[in-house]
Amino acid sequence: MINFEFYNPTRIIFGKDAILKLGRELSRYGNKVLVITGGGSAKRSGLLDHALRILKENNKQVWILDGIKPNPRLDSVYEGIKMCKTRQVELILAIGGGSVIDAAKAIAVGAATQHDIWDFYLRKLSVTKALPLGCMLTLAATGTEMNGNSVVTKWETREKNFISGSALFPKFSILDPTYTLTVPRDQTANGCVDMMVHVFEQYFSHTTDTPLQDRLCEGLMKTIIENALILAADPQDYTVRANILWCGTMALNELVGMGKEQDWATHIIEHELSAEYDIAHGAGLAILSPNWMAYVYKENKALFRQFAERVWDIQGNGKSEEEIILEGIRKTREFFVSIGAPATLEDAGIDESKISLMAARAVRFGPVGSMKKLGKEDVETILRNALV
Amino acid sequence: MINFEFYNPTRIIFGKDAILKLGRELSRYGNKVLVITGGGSAKRSGLLDHALRILKENNKQVWILDGIKPNPRLDSVYEGIKMCKTRQVELILAIGGGSVIDAAKAIAVGAATQHDIWDFYLRKLSVTKALPLGCMLTLAATGTEMNGNSVVTKWETREKNFISGSALFPKFSILDPTYTLTVPRDQTANGCVDMMVHVFEQYFSHTTDTPLQDRLCEGLMKTIIENALILAADPQDYTVRANILWCGTMALNELVGMGKEQDWATHIIEHELSAEYDIAHGAGLAILSPNWMAYVYKENKALFRQFAERVWDIQGNGKSEEEIILEGIRKTREFFVSIGAPATLEDAGIDESKISLMAARAVRFGPVGSMKKLGKEDVETILRNALV
Repeated sequence: MINFEFYNPTRIIFGKDAILKLGRELSRYGNKVLVITGGGSAKRSGLLDHALRILKENNKQVWILDGIKPNPRLDSVYEGIKMCKTRQVELILAIGGGSVIDAAKAIAVGAATQHDIWDFYLRKLSVTKALPLGCMLTLAATGTEMNGNSVVTKWETREKNFISGSALFPKFSILDPTYTLTVPRDQTANGCVDMMVHVFEQYFSHTTDTPLQDRLCEGLMKTIIENALILAADPQDYTVRANILWCGTMALNELVGMGKEQDWATHIIEHELSAEYDIAHGAGLAILSPNWMAYVYKENKALFRQFAERVWDIQGNGKSEEEIILEGIRKTREFFVSIGAPATLEDAGIDESKISLMAARAVRFGPVGSMKKLGKEDVETILRNALV
Repeated sequence: MINFEFYNPTRIIFGKDAILKLGRELSRYGNKVLVITGGGSAKRSGLLDHALRILKENNKQVWILDGIKPNPRLDSVYEGIKMCKTRQVELILAIGGGSVIDAAKAIAVGAATQHDIWDFYLRKLSVTKALPLGCMLTLAATGTEMNGNSVVTKWETREKNFISGSALFPKFSILDPTYTLTVPRDQTANGCVDMMVHVFEQYFSHTTDTPLQDRLCEGLMKTIIENALILAADPQDYTVRANILWCGTMALNELVGMGKEQDWATHIIEHELSAEYDIAHGAGLAILSPNWMAYVYKENKALFRQFAERVWDIQGNGKSEEEIILEGIRKTREFFVSIGAPATLEDAGIDESKISLMAARAVRFGPVGSMKKLGKEDVETILRNALV
């Protein structure tokens, strides 16, 4: 195990009718609230109206920024920052999925500084403060509701960058599985892929002697697999939605990977895919992660074998280590496909024309990953292997 | 899964030389610091001196309260509260094991109120504020370094009571496995039993559909078992000490049991044993928990079977469900004995003379537990079954 620090002060309010605690939380913050939301679902489901009613009952002065898109754009962030500064907003309330929350985090940071928010995403500046942020989550996927990360895209230049910092932890996040019952099949699948790959990024590592972290990750992966498969057949089951929702949070509240060197190459490469083609992040991860595994497993065969045996219950029975590992990778790919995620770039309508360009962009801050440090050529190979 | 709230703002600083972060943490708090410590080990190991040196380098004004005993006593708590009030202490720094930290929490609450601290432990008052508390942990066991609980004993009346509340979370806890390398065999064993039973209290439940919580608990239990067995043979292995230290924290930072109805009967009954006989809490739990299991397993056979199969790898092979369950309970008892914990009250030098009295005290706030609500007669039976 390597040395680590863990700090996560987000208050999670989980379960049916969790929204009824919103008033209590609001009482801890100032009077001027900016509500940030996406397109349709928060409105259609009545969730936005319910939240606005509670805000009104608590005598809050409210502004709304809606229309935040998946792969949230920098221009919306600038718009939100301007609203915060003009109105002297004291609390941001994000109602939606990971993209809405990530945009809200960018706005929270931008509103508390005189610098250009994009300079933080370009790693020129570090985050030290932000407006307080509350979240009401409508999609099980990114874990942003309980972590200090945010990813935003500058669409004109196809740059998808991230920031991290303690100031970015939401003060509270309300997670009611009921809101997620109507999430469409493809978004549900993409969310399950996303949380699964969050665990991969923490699990696959050169750090040795991390038996607890390994077992917690394996428990998470097994639970995601079992519940994602049920959801693919019966998306309306509250209990299963609740399990997946909690898995999504636990998969990236940073706890299961503490003390391990982490990887994150797959995420960084995927950001190039979705920055260039605006595909869903989870879809890109489903395509890339088995190809990443196949490219790097020789760096730590023992761990990839453990993954195959403990997560996929693959028995030895005279198979070679190599065969066991490859069966684990194949099962991973088959699982993603079985819940409705794509397997190849071709499935997502992407050809080879921009592979070289995306590979170059992926390594613009230097080599990516830690299982194996990947340069431009490595990334290019992984992308080519993912074509068909 | 049932509705829940999770909030845990303690900053964990984990690993070799983690003490080097103490100065940074101290800078966040005021100048007047009360150091609270136990008897020997913090002094003998040089840890106390090292901390005092760092306090001095940071120009803190320091007072010391030492001699905190296992099963910490109310009279030491009163002494600490008086010191805090007289000196206008701004930060409490606890250096030791769970007892030192629990006493420090009591002092932190008492110093921030005009009420008698014991009234909080008698459940007449709720905790709402406390002085800031930092911890340097020297024993893997109770999890108090990352939770909002404290247990204190009023020795004259043999009352061992607890309090809980967000104000009780330490601001930071420094966990360096090196400090735990010299913990004697019996204390090491008792610590491992304590963390194991913390997981039992959260795992054994009537709440259904908690697959993630179950797997996280099972991963913790398997890791505790594997590492406790290695430690019993080789107590000087840093890596294994690190694993057990992190297990102890994770076993009671409240995360693995979220969304489940919890039990805690075994702990409440044990508090009577250690209040009456001043035995180590872990020793009492080793004696009681298999007897508790044997008394209650019929309330949820499916879960006790899952425990036997997943944690102890017990195969069906034509055995009845009952046989599988009982084998799981037997393996639990054998594990505790194999690492050096006692199996019976007799082993701990306790006879039947006070069983009835202890049973009556255990239920003084009402029936205990939730797997099966235990009244005085139930508790008495469990204690009698534990005699030999």
